[in-house]
Amino acid sequence: MAPPFSAAEYEDRQARMRHAVAYRGLDAIVIGDPSNINWLTGYDAWSFYTPQVLVLGPEIGPVWICRLMDAGAAKFTTYLTADQVVPFPEELVQRPDTHPAVFVADWLGKAGLANKRIGYESDVYYFSPAMLDNLRNGLPNAQWSDANLLVNWQRLIKSPAELEIMQQAAIITGHVMQTAYDGIAPGIRQCDLMADVAAAQIRGTPEFGGDMPAIHPLVLAGEAASTAHPLRTDAPFEPNQTVAFELGACRKRYNCGLARTVHLG
Amino acid sequence: MAPPFSAAEYEDRQARMRHAVAYRGLDAIVIGDPSNINWLTGYDAWSFYTPQVLVLGPEIGPVWICRLMDAGAAKFTTYLTADQVVPFPEELVQRPDTHPAVFVADWLGKAGLANKRIGYESDVYYFSPAMLDNLRNGLPNAQWSDANLLVNWQRLIKSPAELEIMQQAAIITGHVMQTAYDGIAPGIRQCDLMADVAAAQIRGTPEFGGDMPAIHPLVLAGEAASTAHPLRTDAPFEPNQTVAFELGACRKRYNCGLARTVHLG
Repeated sequence: MAPPFSAAEYEDRQARMRHAVAYRGLDAIVIGDPSNINWLTGYDAWSFYTPQVLVLGPEIGPVWICRLMDAGAAKFTTYLTADQVVPFPEELVQRPDTHPAVFVADWLGKAGLANKRIGYESDVYYFSPAMLDNLRNGLPNAQWSDANLLVNWQRLIKSPAELEIMQQAAIITGHVMQTAYDGIAPGIRQCDLMADVAAAQIRGTPEFGGDMPAIHPLVLAGEAASTAHPLRTDAPFEPNQTVAFELGACRKRYNCGLARTVHLG
Repeated sequence: MAPPFSAAEYEDRQARMRHAVAYRGLDAIVIGDPSNINWLTGYDAWSFYTPQVLVLGPEIGPVWICRLMDAGAAKFTTYLTADQVVPFPEELVQRPDTHPAVFVADWLGKAGLANKRIGYESDVYYFSPAMLDNLRNGLPNAQWSDANLLVNWQRLIKSPAELEIMQQAAIITGHVMQTAYDGIAPGIRQCDLMADVAAAQIRGTPEFGGDMPAIHPLVLAGEAASTAHPLRTDAPFEPNQTVAFELGACRKRYNCGLARTVHLG
């Protein structure tokens, strides 16, 4: 296993981010969005179920702080060195009387940020109010400042290497939609068609596999077509039904979406 | 489409929750965890990408506040009446100068909670620091209080109807693990095997389909076996490899996990 991009590409992203943090007048940013962490380091594992953050600034980091159990994945999905991975002890996991953010605040203080200007992502998933409250309480003399979307803006312009992977996602997306188009018929259960669709998403092509997309395949049929984003059912498709698909595919965290509508004769 | 449980079952859950909120000394709780909202009302749609909350108290709610585009799904996935679904306007979605929580705070104030004791879930996904900050700013005279896990504790003891669905999830899980066991062999790509596994998860049985599980299928093979929760790759399985599976299945949001290890001869 290895990160999907070169070390130079991640270093370039981190350099752009350091510049953005300095430009915003901050000494560091605490990044909680797993996709932003992945973009900056390559880190990839099913680890977001406990708090995890990446700390980065003009003169600090990147340092990855996560649960001890999940620190191992940094070894072969990132180029981070051992001292850039700071695991918090298992004893802090899901305890009512403490929080991993207590450890993170302590680390930030020891790293010289106790009186500094620290940005955080205020409106991302997996960075909870408890995380922020514990950081603030642990470093009461720091100046906490909303830096939401600061990483996302750096992600906006894609590199040639990113465009190549996005094109691979688009190729898989074509196979996925074709699978749905070829398989749909009156009497076929929605779950059976979507099983084939999900398989096509992950199987990819002989050259490259797919990942799980950011959105589950959506099927708008019958009364479900009266709203947005309904989840599929076990019901069979019906004759003369108009069915809208919102599908897509994903390659190395890069998603490609595609929507098409079919009418069953 | 219909909620997976009877109206009486949801009413019982809401009654238990009202009692828990009162016992905690609160006038209402703002629930942000999508799975807790689903447990209390049945609401099911891919709508958590924008803020959404359920408000419930001894003398209020349940009232579901979400994006207008996603309000329609409440009609056929819940028993909520029209006045229990309060959509916020599309203009509030992903704007830098405002937040849906401004609307939620305004609604809570008009509902008589401006000076009341309001609990919130402090450490759940999809209820962000920005959501809480905007609620606090909008209702500065309310007494905000951490009520994390209050819903989860009510969910702990399962009803007979829930146990039946959990047994269905377990049946699908058996098929899923058998699919992995039957399909693995040296030379098979991880993505091809996991495509079959994902399909088995969704296809379910002839009697009932499966949902997407809470965790993506995990394969620990080669160096990935040195850590927890690695994501699968496109690499082929190798002769003499020991491979651990962490799989599972899901039926109507009820997950059943299963871990097994195989050795390739």
